[in-house]
Amino acid sequence: MPSRVGYLGPAGTYAEEALRASAPGVVDEIPFATVYETVMAVQDEAVEQSVVPIENSLEGGVGATLDALAGDAKDVRITAELVHPIRHCLIAREGVEPDRLERVLSHPQATAQSARFLRERLPRAELVGAASTAEAVQLVAGSPEPWGAVGSRLAAELYGARVLVADISDHDANATRFVWLARAGEAGLHDVLDVRSVKTSVVFWGFNDDSPGALVDVLREFSDRAINLTKIESRPRRVHLGHYMFFADLEGAAGRESVQAALAALEGRVETLRVLGSYPALGAGVAPA
Amino acid sequence: MPSRVGYLGPAGTYAEEALRASAPGVVDEIPFATVYETVMAVQDEAVEQSVVPIENSLEGGVGATLDALAGDAKDVRITAELVHPIRHCLIAREGVEPDRLERVLSHPQATAQSARFLRERLPRAELVGAASTAEAVQLVAGSPEPWGAVGSRLAAELYGARVLVADISDHDANATRFVWLARAGEAGLHDVLDVRSVKTSVVFWGFNDDSPGALVDVLREFSDRAINLTKIESRPRRVHLGHYMFFADLEGAAGRESVQAALAALEGRVETLRVLGSYPALGAGVAPA
Repeated sequence: MPSRVGYLGPAGTYAEEALRASAPGVVDEIPFATVYETVMAVQDEAVEQSVVPIENSLEGGVGATLDALAGDAKDVRITAELVHPIRHCLIAREGVEPDRLERVLSHPQATAQSARFLRERLPRAELVGAASTAEAVQLVAGSPEPWGAVGSRLAAELYGARVLVADISDHDANATRFVWLARAGEAGLHDVLDVRSVKTSVVFWGFNDDSPGALVDVLREFSDRAINLTKIESRPRRVHLGHYMFFADLEGAAGRESVQAALAALEGRVETLRVLGSYPALGAGVAPA
Repeated sequence: MPSRVGYLGPAGTYAEEALRASAPGVVDEIPFATVYETVMAVQDEAVEQSVVPIENSLEGGVGATLDALAGDAKDVRITAELVHPIRHCLIAREGVEPDRLERVLSHPQATAQSARFLRERLPRAELVGAASTAEAVQLVAGSPEPWGAVGSRLAAELYGARVLVADISDHDANATRFVWLARAGEAGLHDVLDVRSVKTSVVFWGFNDDSPGALVDVLREFSDRAINLTKIESRPRRVHLGHYMFFADLEGAAGRESVQAALAALEGRVETLRVLGSYPALGAGVAPA
């Protein structure tokens, strides 16, 4: 039986594109309505793995993913990462020409990321919001109206629509980092012991010491051991403004001696520390299969 | 002539609610289509001031605001902050009852923040995306269909619609920090010298030293001088994944001796440092008039 892999649906999202770009062989692709449900499907064993966006080069961290990993998905671990280019396409059904488009539907974020193109090339088209890029493509593919959508090439293929213009994003560097998730203890995409370069993601919050230097003291546990941080990001703890949790990616597996020592020291400094997973670092010659 | 103040439109957004809650007397409210345009209207002197969201308790930093302040809005400064509660309301036109609603329109973020309420109370209603909460309210107020919207109380008032259920957000702690902006050198809402507690916002990027401890060394310039950081947030620099800029709020005015010394030291450590403004800190008994 093929492995069941969850992703943020409906069919044709960039998440599904990323899943297909990195899936190890044949898998059952299971769409979920929200990022939260996609993550929790792994926690609740409705699927073996999920693929979720964690960070976009233009928009920053994906809050829903980070919050789920720091919150309810206690037994879920990151097992691999991949960077997928986000190439927005202008899409319409067969026979509709770009200069006839009266409306362009998409998720407001995709529309904003293509604002310059849409303003210059389709100044008269009305921009209409949709719940997702894939839903927008599905809608215009099934409507008799002269409408366009901004979405993925995969969505155009799946819903039988046509790509009028490819790559309409205002920024060349639009890319999303996705992560593969599995339950702790289950085999993920890769056996992390086999690869040379490994990254560990952690989240922590609640400094035991509330002096001005508390965050610095925490970060020094890494720098003093020559452990490089490749990312640090703060997120509100969803209690009050001004309370943050910190997501950090560090070089090295959680089982390595220096990392183990740093994490042990960190535990003494914060209320909560959670290791979200150790997995092959990109750029180390280990691309998901 | 009343002062011209920009905000993210259309009329009835939470930004306009926040503007009205904190405007010093009579002002001309000027709506803009995007956060970027709202910030740049101050830079380009189309308005004297603007009010923009900078951080939400559930979603984190507002990327469009942070990116504009770190990017093109070189002469724009933060002159005041305020925290405005985000109270999503279920809204329909007069005569439409909640149990008849076939569709509920809103910005996907507002719909997501009210997901539990909508699922439990309106399980049959179809959720439809809109470009903004205010646009959704305007749409349902003007349509003969039995549609609802998720939006602000102000939007219901402005478009002649009715609040069916107030406070439908799944989280009590949904609040947004807004900032007032003015051109550097122009008088803002407050004269910062008159108040006891002042906060300074800065953004910096590009460490001159790329060792594991570079960020720690930067932050120690503050902690070694007993300057408390009330916030630190990383954002992608929109060039490649893995390149970040850091937004920090610190206690004290930029003109205070210890802060001046820390900022001078910081300048030697990073490629770019920009002071985004010094302004009265909330909780210091100084609420915008």
